[in-house]
Amino acid sequence: MTLRIAEIFGPTIQGEGALIGEPTVFVRAGGCDYRCAWCDSMHAVDSKYRHDWAAMDPAQVWDEVRELSGGQPLTVSISGGNPAIQDFAPLIALGKLEGYRFACETQGSVAKPWFGDLDTLVLSPKPPSSGEVTDWDAFDACLKAAGNAPQTVMKIVIFDDADYQWAKDAAARYPHLPLYLQPGNPEVDPDLPVDLQQTTDRLLWLIEKVTEDKWFAPRVLPQLHVLVWGNKRGV
Amino acid sequence: MTLRIAEIFGPTIQGEGALIGEPTVFVRAGGCDYRCAWCDSMHAVDSKYRHDWAAMDPAQVWDEVRELSGGQPLTVSISGGNPAIQDFAPLIALGKLEGYRFACETQGSVAKPWFGDLDTLVLSPKPPSSGEVTDWDAFDACLKAAGNAPQTVMKIVIFDDADYQWAKDAAARYPHLPLYLQPGNPEVDPDLPVDLQQTTDRLLWLIEKVTEDKWFAPRVLPQLHVLVWGNKRGV
Repeated sequence: MTLRIAEIFGPTIQGEGALIGEPTVFVRAGGCDYRCAWCDSMHAVDSKYRHDWAAMDPAQVWDEVRELSGGQPLTVSISGGNPAIQDFAPLIALGKLEGYRFACETQGSVAKPWFGDLDTLVLSPKPPSSGEVTDWDAFDACLKAAGNAPQTVMKIVIFDDADYQWAKDAAARYPHLPLYLQPGNPEVDPDLPVDLQQTTDRLLWLIEKVTEDKWFAPRVLPQLHVLVWGNKRGV
Repeated sequence: MTLRIAEIFGPTIQGEGALIGEPTVFVRAGGCDYRCAWCDSMHAVDSKYRHDWAAMDPAQVWDEVRELSGGQPLTVSISGGNPAIQDFAPLIALGKLEGYRFACETQGSVAKPWFGDLDTLVLSPKPPSSGEVTDWDAFDACLKAAGNAPQTVMKIVIFDDADYQWAKDAAARYPHLPLYLQPGNPEVDPDLPVDLQQTTDRLLWLIEKVTEDKWFAPRVLPQLHVLVWGNKRGV
């Protein structure tokens, strides 16, 4: 069985959401069923980049993760693209044998049995600004596939007031899922610098939205990697 | 019974550590048994500011927290100064009746029975750059007072290589305590702007320390409030 892998990098820290700050090696899968308008990882999404994706079997992926981490167990984040269109069960099994932990980030459009093998499942349904429409039945199937095994959380990117209102509705659907909001990043060109002040201003905007609204359910977090490295890849 | 309160503010988000991003009202206690060289809250520490601290009974403090939060339960962070030199049990009891959650941040130099009433206890022992010396017996007494009731975590501020090595030793003492590291902030004047680039550069330095060292136990996080508001108070 072969995996399509866009990049493997780290150790670095997780920049977003429930595991923010956690030392992590990233396995970024190639291929996605979505085409979000503001996607920051199009190199792992658009099939025009498919010749840059490596065909690797799980043991090869695992060898690279082990080498990058020096054999010291840490969290491996399976991201993409949408990693749920591939079978990561064998990779997770190899890593767990050596004490590594696994997180996966997916939009929740495709459910896989291996979600139940994860330590953390981050479901990030996409708000209206993405141009995509969430299939909540598919999302529910993801929750069911995960079961009670992993810590399952919801993360929503917010670009504007419509996204914010949509996030409130999504949260009302799943009141028991821990929720993380992050301001959208409109600057996704890896070759252009990111404006730090604008990035922190967007965080301030979102903090003020939830606090003025007295909506205290979500945590509000930035993308730390954008603050530290801009849109540079592989960090 | 009267509490010495330096400030009550929010709702804003928690800027640091285990609850980073969490909507929070802060109750900052006045008075401290430490005088850290780089303290960023000296207005709640040095007794020369004591005439600015309000003498309030727990019901008055609670009324203000409830008003700021519009009666919507959220996390109340009891900080300081060192809040452990006062008795916050009555305040916590009042808030829990209405569904609020309580976190406390203290250096771990004084243990109080009310630690066991908290939802989250953040123990932040101070590294050598602070000029203070940790009494580990007192720290152990804090862990004992907390028991298994709250989520108890350790947070250490890192200014330099000596602090970093000290953090590794402290972590080795308490391998089961979740650990959060944050780069120290040498710019603490509330009237001077913070240099965003320097702030994110310090985060990068600390991320590179742990990843090059392959020390994957701690999470590495910035102070979000410094990135968003600089050293402004009351946010």
